[in-house]
Amino acid sequence: LTFGHRLAQAVRTTGAPLCLGLDPLPERLPSAMKARWQGLRGEALRGAQAEQVYLFNAAAIRAAQGRLPAVKLQFAFFEALGHAGWRALEQSCRAAREAGLLVIGDGKRGDIDSTAAAYAQAALDPEGPLGCDALTVNAWMGRDTLRPALEQCRSHGRGLFVLVRTTNPGSAEHQLAGSPSGAERMAALVAELGPELVGPEGLSSVGAVVGCSAAAEAQGWRAAMPQAWFLVPGLGAQGGTAAQVLAGRRPDGLGVLGAASRALLYPSEPSPEWELRPQDWIARQVERLVAELREIQG
Amino acid sequence: LTFGHRLAQAVRTTGAPLCLGLDPLPERLPSAMKARWQGLRGEALRGAQAEQVYLFNAAAIRAAQGRLPAVKLQFAFFEALGHAGWRALEQSCRAAREAGLLVIGDGKRGDIDSTAAAYAQAALDPEGPLGCDALTVNAWMGRDTLRPALEQCRSHGRGLFVLVRTTNPGSAEHQLAGSPSGAERMAALVAELGPELVGPEGLSSVGAVVGCSAAAEAQGWRAAMPQAWFLVPGLGAQGGTAAQVLAGRRPDGLGVLGAASRALLYPSEPSPEWELRPQDWIARQVERLVAELREIQG
Repeated sequence: LTFGHRLAQAVRTTGAPLCLGLDPLPERLPSAMKARWQGLRGEALRGAQAEQVYLFNAAAIRAAQGRLPAVKLQFAFFEALGHAGWRALEQSCRAAREAGLLVIGDGKRGDIDSTAAAYAQAALDPEGPLGCDALTVNAWMGRDTLRPALEQCRSHGRGLFVLVRTTNPGSAEHQLAGSPSGAERMAALVAELGPELVGPEGLSSVGAVVGCSAAAEAQGWRAAMPQAWFLVPGLGAQGGTAAQVLAGRRPDGLGVLGAASRALLYPSEPSPEWELRPQDWIARQVERLVAELREIQG
Repeated sequence: LTFGHRLAQAVRTTGAPLCLGLDPLPERLPSAMKARWQGLRGEALRGAQAEQVYLFNAAAIRAAQGRLPAVKLQFAFFEALGHAGWRALEQSCRAAREAGLLVIGDGKRGDIDSTAAAYAQAALDPEGPLGCDALTVNAWMGRDTLRPALEQCRSHGRGLFVLVRTTNPGSAEHQLAGSPSGAERMAALVAELGPELVGPEGLSSVGAVVGCSAAAEAQGWRAAMPQAWFLVPGLGAQGGTAAQVLAGRRPDGLGVLGAASRALLYPSEPSPEWELRPQDWIARQVERLVAELREIQG
């Protein structure tokens, strides 16, 4: 089964075009967890933080189970905790998989030759340490950087999300320069690579990262990449709205997967419930946001 | 002390514009090392491979000590071994630092906001797990992706090598498209960020990755980025020559740092000496290549 098909099934089953982003910032965990590393430093600190990060992720994963099709793990936050963080990343991927969630690795990796193969092995190989279902990639070095990951898509039903258009302050610099622009060239690459890996819904395993506040452009990106899943980060924390996330969907409602992280994981004001039962609190945020998305989707 | 200055001092002291690339592929290690993981699978396999990778790196680091200014660690190959690989990466960084070598992390990381900060913390922060002296970065998402790493450059004497021009088969796709081209825009960014972090030699801590076989363009890149250190990968294995590596140097001979990995680490034909004493074999390859570079440099 292709990733594009598996994601379509999971979005239909849950009725939720949304994944939970696991961006675990130790300093934002509940107080009882933070107490576990008081006074520690260096490797001991990172080890204690990584343990709590995994436990918090496990609670978030239980909250997402059955409600959402997927989780997205931001590699950087695990990497900041060194090898202990990478262990927590491996544990979190396994827990998500066992909970029946698709696992999207947000690594934005991009390199060539055997280096690209090593990144694909790390993130996507079923025998590798993470075994993610999909990986975000940066193809600025050229389409040959994608070859090993595409091989994982073919052999093991994995997927890719190629960075096409982000919406951070500096994003225009390269993405909107030239004609065709950088983002348009990336979109053309996604459209070109897609057909080989299209599932019965007409959606490919080669998807695109398309930022949330690019909603005004969303139908243009849809026309440029008719078969691509759009991974749309930035819902909530980066100011994106549910309507913006859905702006690039196909007429049948499929084709976009929003990602929300901090808005679902951490309360903006002190919350005794979250401190004591983060799983329940997160589950409620997830349900609230899914309801909002469904209402817009109609 | 700025990274640009520290690198200039180290290149002058050793007389070698070259760093040893540690791209540890388990299947290419000496037979006695490979015997340690026979019959193992999954996490046990990765753990045993990571241990041997570290031991091999330690031998390579001793071979580089006093002969070269720096080592470059390719994160992908460690990442493929999961958390055990990340532990070996941390150990290798520490061993290189203790051997008096500058440590360049080749991660080609690139992301935004707190994610970029987490990558900078992972690779560059003195309190972080790796404590590299410099990091390769992919700035396609825009200059704001560099902000946290630049802060590490200012506060802790760290350095960056921004991907400007690579020479893999697909590299032209984005790097040579448009006018100014993608690579020219990246070079302009390097030139713009550099002056703040220039050392007494006139070389900045904000450097550029400029591929080896772009030698014909090298003086053009030098004119575009007069203060930048060029990290020039691909010497040996990717077909680059010593003359190509040096093509972008300044009139005083400084400004380029070649990187050779597999040509220095692994014999192309069976070698009993390498099997038994990899350190001695690698030291000889390093000396041979340094002599070749010096001869061209005149």
